[in-house]
Amino acid sequence: MNFNTRLESVVNAGIGLCVGLDPVLEKLPEHIRSSDEPLYVFNLEIIENTHEYAAAYKPNLAFYEAHGPAGWRQLEKTIRAIPDECLVIADGKRGDIGSTAEAYAVSLFETLNFDAATVNPYLGSDALEPFLRREEKGAFILAVTSNPGGADLQDLICNGEQLFRHVIRMARRLNKLSNAGLVVGATKPDIWHDLLKLAENLPLLIPGIGAQGGDLDVLKAELKDYGAPALVNASRSIIYASSGIDFGQAAGEAAERLKGQLCG
Amino acid sequence: MNFNTRLESVVNAGIGLCVGLDPVLEKLPEHIRSSDEPLYVFNLEIIENTHEYAAAYKPNLAFYEAHGPAGWRQLEKTIRAIPDECLVIADGKRGDIGSTAEAYAVSLFETLNFDAATVNPYLGSDALEPFLRREEKGAFILAVTSNPGGADLQDLICNGEQLFRHVIRMARRLNKLSNAGLVVGATKPDIWHDLLKLAENLPLLIPGIGAQGGDLDVLKAELKDYGAPALVNASRSIIYASSGIDFGQAAGEAAERLKGQLCG
Repeated sequence: MNFNTRLESVVNAGIGLCVGLDPVLEKLPEHIRSSDEPLYVFNLEIIENTHEYAAAYKPNLAFYEAHGPAGWRQLEKTIRAIPDECLVIADGKRGDIGSTAEAYAVSLFETLNFDAATVNPYLGSDALEPFLRREEKGAFILAVTSNPGGADLQDLICNGEQLFRHVIRMARRLNKLSNAGLVVGATKPDIWHDLLKLAENLPLLIPGIGAQGGDLDVLKAELKDYGAPALVNASRSIIYASSGIDFGQAAGEAAERLKGQLCG
Repeated sequence: MNFNTRLESVVNAGIGLCVGLDPVLEKLPEHIRSSDEPLYVFNLEIIENTHEYAAAYKPNLAFYEAHGPAGWRQLEKTIRAIPDECLVIADGKRGDIGSTAEAYAVSLFETLNFDAATVNPYLGSDALEPFLRREEKGAFILAVTSNPGGADLQDLICNGEQLFRHVIRMARRLNKLSNAGLVVGATKPDIWHDLLKLAENLPLLIPGIGAQGGDLDVLKAELKDYGAPALVNASRSIIYASSGIDFGQAAGEAAERLKGQLCG
């Protein structure tokens, strides 16, 4: 089954909720911090309380790498704790020359058994292809990012149109196995209408809702007639919904509320 | 001491040799493959035989991540085995939004104690700044990469000039602590003359010599009067100089030969 079909089945014709698992030690509830495996213990409780509402989880690799081999082990255990009904996306924004990109693809899709990964297009098509060789595994290519500096390069006008539009065309060309998608930030509502026409049938991974301030209603209106599945990601607004002992329950409630807004 | 000064002192007014530590299990000599820590055992012998000629080592993180926590542990041990006189560059091409980029910087510069890292500019200046906050640690920003697909985006004409030239200007703006540099592939000799004028005083990390086919003589002629230190990286042509039991000695000879060509 190709990745697009897998994604369609978990999103179920609506907008899917993706929960970002980005645990920062200093922000975890105090009783968790002293655990041997604080990131894993934290994630486990988040997953138990949110999986009913989540179509996907997205650990950002930076927050695990910051703890060296111990962080990597907790990442492995986190991935295994996620129910089979949910997809697991490696947010690593990798990108390297061909043979190295293949090593990253092996690391993410085989060693760690992620279902998909975010990838960076700056090195061009041969740096992206290795992530698209396994039809059941997906690659979300960064097009428009949600940070203020995203515009520095992505909005430059190249041969008559913004750079990110060239990236979208590249993603379409690379989508031979129906497993390529796009990362498009929710923080720039004015570009959505044209962007969706160009993206055609590429699945979308959308950060920037919640803590980053993107407007969900605008997004929903634009996505209404879009022909491919979309995942809206929220990290901090769910995992840090409470900093107390009730953080799991609060995360569950935040996920339920956001899932309701996505479907309502 | 800022990174630029550290780099100048190891390069010593010439062109420095950087040895890429990119071990792929299947390519290692047979007697090493069965070791508990094959990447580390291999690297150790490469380092012992080449450090006399090397100004820097550059492990590409992909080749360690592909082995999970065990790979990460071997990366840590490899870094500790490199003599203090040599700089150690994390080739991870990371790039993410501000708070996440800071987590990567902590991982690379503090947890792993790398001296510098390669970073990807697609997310713009606020994704690069966290890598440039420690004046003694450097960030080499990808400008022109050595792979064929590099041209897909990097050569697009944006507001009258190629995209990579905008990246070089961004790097200059971000170089407030004298610790920013550029990655520029050796495989495109025709752009070097103009590029060096624009890069002004940014240190250079140059892949693409050796296995990838860049011409060393052209490069040396162009770099002759350049005002900042440059590192030429070679990986496969050194570490796989022999596939037999004499691989360490062969790597040493290949490093000595290349160092001679760089200085001759």
